[in-house]
Amino acid sequence: MENKLQELKTRLLEYSDLSFVGAVLGWDQSTYMPPAGAEARARQSSLVGKLAFERLVDPAVGHLLDDLRPYEESLPYDHDDAALIRNARRSYERYVKVPVNLVGELLEHTALTYSKWAEARPANDWARMEPLLEKTLDLSRRYAECFPGYDHIADPLIDMADYGMKAQDVRRVFAELREGLVPLVKAITSQAPTDDSFIYSQYPQAAQLAFGEKIIKQYGYDFQRGRQDLTHHPFMTKFAWGDVRITTRVREDDVRDALFSTLHEAGHALYEMGINPAYEGTSLDGGTSAGVHESQSRLWENIVGRSREFWDHYYPDLQAAFPDQLRGVTVDQFHRAINKVTPSLIRVDADEVTYNLHVMIRFDIELALLEGSLAIKDLPEMWNSRYASDLGVTAPDHRDGVLQDVHWYGGLIGGAFQGYTLGNLLSAQFYSKALEAHPQIPSEIGQGKFDTLHAWLKANIYQHGSKFTAPELVQRVTGGSLQVQPLLNYLRTKYGALYTL
Amino acid sequence: MENKLQELKTRLLEYSDLSFVGAVLGWDQSTYMPPAGAEARARQSSLVGKLAFERLVDPAVGHLLDDLRPYEESLPYDHDDAALIRNARRSYERYVKVPVNLVGELLEHTALTYSKWAEARPANDWARMEPLLEKTLDLSRRYAECFPGYDHIADPLIDMADYGMKAQDVRRVFAELREGLVPLVKAITSQAPTDDSFIYSQYPQAAQLAFGEKIIKQYGYDFQRGRQDLTHHPFMTKFAWGDVRITTRVREDDVRDALFSTLHEAGHALYEMGINPAYEGTSLDGGTSAGVHESQSRLWENIVGRSREFWDHYYPDLQAAFPDQLRGVTVDQFHRAINKVTPSLIRVDADEVTYNLHVMIRFDIELALLEGSLAIKDLPEMWNSRYASDLGVTAPDHRDGVLQDVHWYGGLIGGAFQGYTLGNLLSAQFYSKALEAHPQIPSEIGQGKFDTLHAWLKANIYQHGSKFTAPELVQRVTGGSLQVQPLLNYLRTKYGALYTL
Repeated sequence: MENKLQELKTRLLEYSDLSFVGAVLGWDQSTYMPPAGAEARARQSSLVGKLAFERLVDPAVGHLLDDLRPYEESLPYDHDDAALIRNARRSYERYVKVPVNLVGELLEHTALTYSKWAEARPANDWARMEPLLEKTLDLSRRYAECFPGYDHIADPLIDMADYGMKAQDVRRVFAELREGLVPLVKAITSQAPTDDSFIYSQYPQAAQLAFGEKIIKQYGYDFQRGRQDLTHHPFMTKFAWGDVRITTRVREDDVRDALFSTLHEAGHALYEMGINPAYEGTSLDGGTSAGVHESQSRLWENIVGRSREFWDHYYPDLQAAFPDQLRGVTVDQFHRAINKVTPSLIRVDADEVTYNLHVMIRFDIELALLEGSLAIKDLPEMWNSRYASDLGVTAPDHRDGVLQDVHWYGGLIGGAFQGYTLGNLLSAQFYSKALEAHPQIPSEIGQGKFDTLHAWLKANIYQHGSKFTAPELVQRVTGGSLQVQPLLNYLRTKYGALYTL
Repeated sequence: MENKLQELKTRLLEYSDLSFVGAVLGWDQSTYMPPAGAEARARQSSLVGKLAFERLVDPAVGHLLDDLRPYEESLPYDHDDAALIRNARRSYERYVKVPVNLVGELLEHTALTYSKWAEARPANDWARMEPLLEKTLDLSRRYAECFPGYDHIADPLIDMADYGMKAQDVRRVFAELREGLVPLVKAITSQAPTDDSFIYSQYPQAAQLAFGEKIIKQYGYDFQRGRQDLTHHPFMTKFAWGDVRITTRVREDDVRDALFSTLHEAGHALYEMGINPAYEGTSLDGGTSAGVHESQSRLWENIVGRSREFWDHYYPDLQAAFPDQLRGVTVDQFHRAINKVTPSLIRVDADEVTYNLHVMIRFDIELALLEGSLAIKDLPEMWNSRYASDLGVTAPDHRDGVLQDVHWYGGLIGGAFQGYTLGNLLSAQFYSKALEAHPQIPSEIGQGKFDTLHAWLKANIYQHGSKFTAPELVQRVTGGSLQVQPLLNYLRTKYGALYTL
């Protein structure tokens, strides 16, 4: 049995290593690759992805999993080996249903689409992306249809990212959240607007990057095991336990953009860096779901990084780094500015209160596209009409409208967005549990100390990797299931004070 | 037959793409990878290398080559398809003799050794490298022994880099060259030393990089198809026809280091960028031998980049970039300084006259190690004694002694060095042919114009990729074989004038 388990691990490691190699190709494509490298890179990424996939669904893996069932059943549910075999089986049984040629086609198509999007977005060129997106939708449908028996065609795609969730679960959660958010947005936006003009001075790139990197080092991001580079659409990526990288982008006319993206991606990275190193290359490696992953990026970006305690400590440093730009601006004014609530066009720039409304628009659109009730050609119109009705704003162009998010242009349509809002919900749930255990956390944040919080998250969430499913993990950590109220409570308390509601 | 050829091309493309993927991993490892990423990267590089190798020696390739023989024989020797099949056969017949496990072991070992070397060299830590190098030597011998029937055990390794050459051919050529070099070095070093103190002022990194990149753009290096990054030991690498990158390193206390490394690697890159794009991913892709490749790096670095005409044009720009550092220094003084001949410790910093003596030391040592007449433990002593006898200098430490060159620490021992001197010889042969065709080239260089030279090299050398073997190419271009005299003539003329011999 020991030999069988070792053979399974060897096979999983080869799958994992090829996936990591694909991640290196993707990282380079998004950071440094010269424009003319795109065509061959798409072909190479697709090849590596196919080789990885072939290893995932090798019939020999199926046989090993059969042979290992008695061993698995002899172990406690929480035993690492049991979880490893269980996860490997879930993944095998899922992906063995997908033809390898479809995977190859999808990989090649999305790599190419990404590189076209990187040019088309700045050029505001929707027409160029439309036919590519038609094909993405077709491929996404074909992918979902590999899993017959779904309630909604999006279910298999949602389940891949957020195991255990279906479209109807997400809809129910989103409806409850919307009910709490809409009156909060209305109450806030009826007040006089916050002055945040100083946010838009000139902030030189190098000083912005240095400031963010200093903070994430204090968060616990280990630069011996990672680095930060520039890209179009920031992301975290992992090539090994010892190599977990983040990317950011800088707008010199907006001091928030690079900083909060760095804090956000560092949150994802802390999760991956905190996984038990013994899990490397196994089915326990990696964060357990899109939602739980996002809970960590949002926790470090928002709950910590936009808190008053945080800025009581760091604002003097920021002011010292940008003395001309922030002359005469108090910490109170700065803290209000970075928490200004205003319905806007760009999801990743949205404040915490309106952010989830952006996600809901995308989620509804994904479902409509997959169902066939919305055609790609009508997507920009639907996008604009939903922004008008839900947020009261209209994009002047496609660049800041339907072309803004990379997801549909670098992957599947379906399953890409719900995790953002699930993550926000979970960030508030997890943080309130951390506070119950360690009420001193906010005052430590006020001293630039993050050890207690980081250690609690590592012990309760990070170290486990994918050992527990998201619902299992939420149960273990919070004693219950996914809840909407903790986020609403957090938002009402924080913004109630900021806006004196 | 069309189908068979297409199938061969498909298989070669997959091999080529996996090799390019391995090159991406290597580039990242040498440029940006955080230290803790090394262990997994070694494993991943080895895996990709093995997958590539398996495709190279797949028995199906052997069958296709058999099937394609009648077609090949029906074509003129110079036909692209004939050359493609011929090269694929040569490569198949060579590598099918090497067990895939040996390849995997070698790849993993050399990737790890490279990362240890990157730490051990600055730490002057020979002891750490000694056991790794023992294993490298063992693997190199085992590799060579896959090709029984050699005259010298180094022959198979030399042949892989410089097809058609054996140890005894290299020795003969090197002996003839040494006979010409030694009196030249003696004549020069008996003169009063050149003042080059201004070379060692402080030259800020960004301005150094910008200056070098401006020049290589004028050489014809296409930044849409490439980029330059920083590394320890500069190299050129290729991921596709559209992605040919170079790396450099900067010493702020030596204005030569980054500049001439940039010109050197750009020379390699111009060769790869100039290959017929129809050859991408076939057995015609890539420069034809180490020696011919090096002829291009040395041509653009030295024959062009250290010429008086070149600096008559560019020195005012350099002086404008570094006005304080070069105040009062004339173009004549600068040109003499960058061509100062002085026996020294570091190969890559050596002047054109003494450079080949460094190569000869390494070549002789490689042969002795492979033969078994020199043990790894005695390597530092042998290194130092050869430097004392051949160049009259002694390294104060291993860092600038036996640890200086990456080659043995990132690949095989054997076949790694002769190409450098073969390249110097060929650079002079090729350049004299270009001058015969276009005598105006030096005066164009004096105007910062390189089109005529670049176009001649592209037409005569670059476009062909590996279509012709090095001996065939030399025959086509020069009408004869590899010669020592053109380099000696070039050196005697240039340094005769500089030192008034």
